[in-house]
Amino acid sequence: MHYGENRVYKKIEIIGVSKKGIEDAIQTAIAKAHKSLEKVSWFEVGEIHGHVGDDGMVSEYQVILKVSFQLK
Amino acid sequence: MHYGENRVYKKIEIIGVSKKGIEDAIQTAIAKAHKSLEKVSWFEVGEIHGHVGDDGMVSEYQVILKVSFQLK
Amino acid sequence: MHYGENRVYKKIEIIGVSKKGIEDAIQTAIAKAHKSLEKVSWFEVGEIHGHVGDDGMVSEYQVILKVSFQLK
Amino acid sequence: MHYGENRVYKKIEIIGVSKKGIEDAIQTAIAKAHKSLEKVSWFEVGEIHGHVGDDGMVSEYQVILKVSFQLK
Amino acid sequence: MHYGENRVYKKIEIIGVSKKGIEDAIQTAIAKAHKSLEKVSWFEVGEIHGHVGDDGMVSEYQVILKVSFQLK
Amino acid sequence: MHYGENRVYKKIEIIGVSKKGIEDAIQTAIAKAHKSLEKVSWFEVGEIHGHVGDDGMVSEYQVILKVSFQLK
Amino acid sequence: MHYGENRVYKKIEIIGVSKKGIEDAIQTAIAKAHKSLEKVSWFEVGEIHGHVGDDGMVSEYQVILKVSFQLK
Amino acid sequence: MHYGENRVYKKIEIIGVSKKGIEDAIQTAIAKAHKSLEKVSWFEVGEIHGHVGDDGMVSEYQVILKVSFQLK
Amino acid sequence: MHYGENRVYKKIEIIGVSKKGIEDAIQTAIAKAHKSLEKVSWFEVGEIHGHVGDDGMVSEYQVILKVSFQLK
Amino acid sequence: MHYGENRVYKKIEIIGVSKKGIEDAIQTAIAKAHKSLEKVSWFEVGEIHGHVGDDGMVSEYQVILKVSFQLK
Amino acid sequence: MHYGENRVYKKIEIIGVSKKGIEDAIQTAIAKAHKSLEKVSWFEVGEIHGHVGDDGMVSEYQVILKVSFQLK
Amino acid sequence: MHYGENRVYKKIEIIGVSKKGIEDAIQTAIAKAHKSLEKVSWFEVGEIHGHVGDDGMVSEYQVILKVSFQLK
Repeated sequence: MHYGENRVYKKIEIIGVSKKGIEDAIQTAIAKAHKSLEKVSWFEVGEIHGHVGDDGMVSEYQVILKVSFQLK
Repeated sequence: MHYGENRVYKKIEIIGVSKKGIEDAIQTAIAKAHKSLEKVSWFEVGEIHGHVGDDGMVSEYQVILKVSFQLK
Repeated sequence: MHYGENRVYKKIEIIGVSKKGIEDAIQTAIAKAHKSLEKVSWFEVGEIHGHVGDDGMVSEYQVILKVSFQLK
Repeated sequence: MHYGENRVYKKIEIIGVSKKGIEDAIQTAIAKAHKSLEKVSWFEVGEIHGHVGDDGMVSEYQVILKVSFQLK
Repeated sequence: MHYGENRVYKKIEIIGVSKKGIEDAIQTAIAKAHKSLEKVSWFEVGEIHGHVGDDGMVSEYQVILKVSFQLK
Repeated sequence: MHYGENRVYKKIEIIGVSKKGIEDAIQTAIAKAHKSLEKVSWFEVGEIHGHVGDDGMVSEYQVILKVSFQLK
Repeated sequence: MHYGENRVYKKIEIIGVSKKGIEDAIQTAIAKAHKSLEKVSWFEVGEIHGHVGDDGMVSEYQVILKVSFQLK
Repeated sequence: MHYGENRVYKKIEIIGVSKKGIEDAIQTAIAKAHKSLEKVSWFEVGEIHGHVGDDGMVSEYQVILKVSFQLK
Repeated sequence: MHYGENRVYKKIEIIGVSKKGIEDAIQTAIAKAHKSLEKVSWFEVGEIHGHVGDDGMVSEYQVILKVSFQLK
Repeated sequence: MHYGENRVYKKIEIIGVSKKGIEDAIQTAIAKAHKSLEKVSWFEVGEIHGHVGDDGMVSEYQVILKVSFQLK
Repeated sequence: MHYGENRVYKKIEIIGVSKKGIEDAIQTAIAKAHKSLEKVSWFEVGEIHGHVGDDGMVSEYQVILKVSFQLK
Repeated sequence: MHYGENRVYKKIEIIGVSKKGIEDAIQTAIAKAHKSLEKVSWFEVGEIHGHVGDDGMVSEYQVILKVSFQLK
C-alpha cells in the first residue's frame, strides 16, 4: 500500500483445495486468483475445512480465504 | 466436487427476493447466478430479511446467500 | 427497491481509503464502485481501520464496506 | 423508506410460533406486532428454534425476528 | 409455554445492577421488568460487566439480559 | 420441561438433508435422531446450506441443527 | 450512573437516518428517543448502513444503535 | 493434560439446570456427565438462561456448557 | 468517568482463577490487576471456563475478563 | 455425499494434539475418531491453541475441529 | 511494514473519548498511545459508544480501538 | 497450570510474521514474547493473514495470536 492518497480495493472470497496441506491450499488459491482475476495484494484466512478418505486420512484441505486487490 | 486434486472455487454473495417464500427466494437467486454469472455448485444461507406491506402481511422474502462455483 | 416482484442483487466487498475521514472513505469507495463496476443501491460498513504516520497522526482511514446492486 | 430526510426507526425483537412452518411463524409474529404494537416496515430473522413432540415430529416452529417501524 | 398453538412473544433487553453478585443482578432486573413492564417467562444472560471501587473491590455487577413474555 | 428440579440435557449437532425444502430437512434430521439416538425435546437451526444441480436448480437442502434431549 | 445501589436499565434499538453523516444520524436517533421515549443515558453503535443515489453519492447514512435509560 | 504426546479429546455440549444458582447448575451438569458419560477434564460456559415463575422470581438457572474428556 | 473532556483508557485481558466460584474469580483477577498493574475502573466478563477434579467436582473456575483503566 | 436423497449426518467436536504441527494435530484427531467412533466424511477447523514449554518453544498444537459422519 | 523478514507486532486495546466526534476520539486515543506507550503503526475500530447529556445531546463519543506497533 | 489455588493470568495479543509458514509465524511471535515480555504458558490463534508478492506467491504469513502468562 502507498499511504496518503484516496484508493479503493476489492475483496473477493475464494477457496483453495490441496491434498498437501494448509499453506499449499492457500498458495493454490492465490496463484489462481492472481493469474485469472487480479493482482492480489494480501489475503485473510476465513475457515479451514477438509475431506477425509475411506482410510481415515485427510484427503484434502479446503481453505476459504479473502483476497484483496486495488481497483485502478 | 472431485476430491484429491488442487482446485479453486470462488464464493459470491447474492440476494434473492420472492414474495412466495424462503425456498423460492433461494431458487430465484441461484437460477439468476447460474444463468448470468457461473455454474453454481453449492450455497449457504446468510440472513433472511423481508418487507411488510401496509396490511401487515409479508410482501416479500429477501434471502442473502453465498454461492460457490469452480474457477477453471 | 421495488417491492413485490422476484429480483436478485449482488453484494461485493470493497475498501475505501481516505485521509480526510470515515465518510470520505465511504464515498470514495462507492463512487469508484459506481463508476467502474455497477450502479450501487446501498452499502453496509464492515470494519474501520487506519494507518498512523510517524508523527502519531491518523494518515488515512480504511473503511471496509459491502455494496449491493441489482443483477438485471 | 423515503430517502433523503432525517428519520428514526425502532427495532423490536419478537418470536412467532406456528406448527405449520417457518414462514407461518414469521407471518404470525408480524401480524401480531402490526396489530398490537406498530405498523411494521421490515423484518430480519434471527434464530429458528422448535419443539418436538413425543412422536419425534416437529410440533411447532419458533422464529425469533426483529421488526422495524418508523417513530413518528 | 403451551405447545401447539400460534403464539407471539416479545423479547426486551434490560440491565440489572447489584453489588451482591451475578444472580442478584439477574433477579433485580427480572423483578423490575415483571412488575413495571410485563409478566416475564424466561431470560437469557448477554454480557456481565461491573464497576470497581477505589479499593480494587467489585462495587457492583451489571448483568445485561434479555427477558421474554407473551404478547396477548 | 418440568421446571424447578435439577436436570441435565445433552445437545448434539446433526444435519438433515432433503430435496423438498427446509422444513423437510429439519423433520428428516429430527426423526432420525429421535429413532436412532434419543427422544428429542427441542431443536435450534444453525446453518442452511444446499447443493445445486447442473440445471441451476436446488437439488437438496442441508440444514444443520442442534437437538436437545434429557439425560436420565 | 450512581454506583453502589440496585438499579435496572432498559436498552432499546433504534435507527437514525441522516444525509449529513454518521454523527448526525446518531444525534438524530438519540434526540428522537430522548423526546418521544425516555431520557437516554448512553448509546452503542451497532451497524452503519446507507443508501446511494443514482449519481453514485451517499444519499443518507442509517446508523443502528442501542440506547439505554434507567427504569424508575 | 500431560503435554508433549499426541492425544485426542472429545467435547460435548450439556445443559445443567438448578434453582439454586449458576455454579450449582454447572456442578449438576458436570456431575451427571462425569457419572453417566465420561470422566470430564474441563468445561466452558456457553450461555446462561433461566425460567421465571409467576411471582417474578427466577425459578431455575439453565447453564449451557461444553465439557471435554480424553478419548483413550 | 467524568464526562465531557478528552480522555484515553486502556483495556487489558486477564484471567482470574478461584475454586470458590465465579464472583471470587472475578474479584481475584481485579484485585491483582489493581495492585500490580493499574487502578481498574470497570470490567467485562468474556468467557467462563473451569477445571474438573477426578471426583467429578469443579475444582476451579477460570474467568476471562477485560479490565479498563484511564491512561494519565 | 450422494446428492438427491434424504440423509442425516452427525457432527461431533474433537481436539487433536500434536507437537509436530497443525496438520498433524488434525490428522491425529481424525484418525482417532475414524477408528474409535465413526467413519468420518469431512471436518471443519474451529480454533487452534497450543502449549509453550519453559524454553519458549511451542511444545504442542491443539486443534479443535468438528468432524461429520453419516447416521445410517 | 517491510515485507519478507520475520517480525513481531503487539496489539493493545485503548478507548478514545471526545465530545467532537468519532474521528477526534480515534485521533485522541492514538496520539496518547503514540506518546505514552509505543509508536503506533495502524489501528482497527472495535466499538463506538457514547454518553448522552440531560438535554438529549451526545456529550461524548467513546471509540474502542486496537492499535498495533512493532516489538523491536 | 497448578490447579486448586487462586491465580491470575494476563493475555496479550501479538502478531508473528514469517515467510516460511503458519507454524513458523506462531513460533516467531511466541519466542519474541517469551524473551522480551513474559514467560508464555499457552497461546490461541486468532486470525491468519498474509502478503502476496508481485509474482503471485505468498511472501509472508501474519498470524495474530493471544498468549497468556501468569501474573506473579
